[in-house]
Amino acid sequence: MNRLEGIYPSDRVTLREVGLRDGLQLAKALPSTDAKIEWLRREHAAGVRHYEIGSFLPAARFPQFADIEAMIRASEDMGLHSAGLTLNERGAEAALATDIREMVCVVSATEAHSQANMRRSRDAAVELVGKVAAMRDATAPGKIVNAGIAMALGCSLSGDVNPEEVVRLAGACLDAGADLVGVADTVGYAGPKAVGALCARMTRLCGDRPFIIHLHDTRGMGVANAAAALDNGARVIDASLGGLGGCPFAPGATGNVVFEDVVFLAESMGFATGIDLEKLKDARAIAEEAMPGEEFHGALHRAGPPKNATWQAVGAA
Amino acid sequence: MNRLEGIYPSDRVTLREVGLRDGLQLAKALPSTDAKIEWLRREHAAGVRHYEIGSFLPAARFPQFADIEAMIRASEDMGLHSAGLTLNERGAEAALATDIREMVCVVSATEAHSQANMRRSRDAAVELVGKVAAMRDATAPGKIVNAGIAMALGCSLSGDVNPEEVVRLAGACLDAGADLVGVADTVGYAGPKAVGALCARMTRLCGDRPFIIHLHDTRGMGVANAAAALDNGARVIDASLGGLGGCPFAPGATGNVVFEDVVFLAESMGFATGIDLEKLKDARAIAEEAMPGEEFHGALHRAGPPKNATWQAVGAA
Repeated sequence: MNRLEGIYPSDRVTLREVGLRDGLQLAKALPSTDAKIEWLRREHAAGVRHYEIGSFLPAARFPQFADIEAMIRASEDMGLHSAGLTLNERGAEAALATDIREMVCVVSATEAHSQANMRRSRDAAVELVGKVAAMRDATAPGKIVNAGIAMALGCSLSGDVNPEEVVRLAGACLDAGADLVGVADTVGYAGPKAVGALCARMTRLCGDRPFIIHLHDTRGMGVANAAAALDNGARVIDASLGGLGGCPFAPGATGNVVFEDVVFLAESMGFATGIDLEKLKDARAIAEEAMPGEEFHGALHRAGPPKNATWQAVGAA
Repeated sequence: MNRLEGIYPSDRVTLREVGLRDGLQLAKALPSTDAKIEWLRREHAAGVRHYEIGSFLPAARFPQFADIEAMIRASEDMGLHSAGLTLNERGAEAALATDIREMVCVVSATEAHSQANMRRSRDAAVELVGKVAAMRDATAPGKIVNAGIAMALGCSLSGDVNPEEVVRLAGACLDAGADLVGVADTVGYAGPKAVGALCARMTRLCGDRPFIIHLHDTRGMGVANAAAALDNGARVIDASLGGLGGCPFAPGATGNVVFEDVVFLAESMGFATGIDLEKLKDARAIAEEAMPGEEFHGALHRAGPPKNATWQAVGAA
């Protein structure tokens, strides 16, 4: 059963907006549910169709995701593709009881980070992906199971990461039942050479099936890494509006790669995104208003597209 | 006479710090001469050796460059390679009377911009390069004449720019006597695909002789463009400390590509820069102190190099 068809077409570039999940993970000023839904709505109006909208985690410890059911209902009203983080069986159970369309599991690339962050081995994390896929098969067979390999391009505990290990883990997740795998530069360690090389390996692993590259701009390499990923077969890129989201291991650091700038990048490289940069400004405005004191990043929104932007998405003024 | 040998070795990457020239062009708060010399000194301590330190322009209209002679003396004391903008014969005369090591002439890639900005045709601008080279031959034959092609990757007046025209103009500048040519994304229009394609053409034009790629981060593509340039044979990159310098055609926009981030990029791609990122922080500190209210950019300086940065330049702590 190819659950990706029509959702993640392999012949075009899909940008996943993770600001409402990764972008809120470390946020100090949390937006209201109404503001988050308006944020979804304005991005939808700009052509965005793929979102991580929250995590299935205990509301008491993660108040930023307490409204995930309202976010799912809003997503369904708009016909968006919604994804939510499911880090354990309880999270998967909760997710399966909702209309969320994609469940995102996480496997660490290194044993040290897996033990420290998840308190389980990497093998156990891959097994959990299999369990979530089986639970999905039994109760909601249409949902996509996505397995992301964290620290795939450098680890805050172990330093260098062997790309062969990453590809092995990604393959194991696919074998366990994941529909889709992703590789994440969780702490923004990599430059474009490493990202390009890993994406080339992932392209060989996945064949016609798309994979996700999840990028952080912690050291300013985000857009360069996205370019290297596109050059090496990646067709699904995670980014957050205004580059929201910091880095748990580098206080004050910048967050995910900036969504707006990645739209411009992809279009400049000849990949149509279907996203209207002008209209994205409205989404940014509501997010900035709803998260006072939070730092927003990116350059494109200040300058606007260039005069020669004949590639500007359909629908732009 | 190969004036570039030892100054711009073709077998390694040279980063030119243009913050003291391009970075001050639109600045509101101008640093004192003492602060600028301390900025040079701290960058020198971090391993930076190539600088644009000002422009030979009327001091009354460009007070930020009124102290260029003091900057040249300080550069000579430190043994740095100093470059200054010479936009007309009067500027070249002034430059030739000093110890500046490199004179930078500018030719616009488009006729419209050449007429509007320089009030001369592109042919006349190329002729001026020849005149400056002849004046240099007559009075100070050791100085480098550098000709930069502005708007080489998109023009704020004409939009798209034909790369063949850019290469033709660059070739004409070399024929006229320039030692070194450069291509500039003056208004930050380009993405990495266009930058890579132009650099590949410039590599074919210049052969073993290096050329300069001058990048602005106006739309967030600066680091990605630097990566594409390195991938396509560029070995000399202009950048400014903290991404100083705006864009005359996009008020509030970001400036040159961030020097610190380009150091990290180059090192991550396996090109040794000889620059110590940790020590660059000291230079940034004096620049920030000397230019209150000015916006400084970049991500690397917040997070620091990653744990696995075994490439860290010699001399780093």
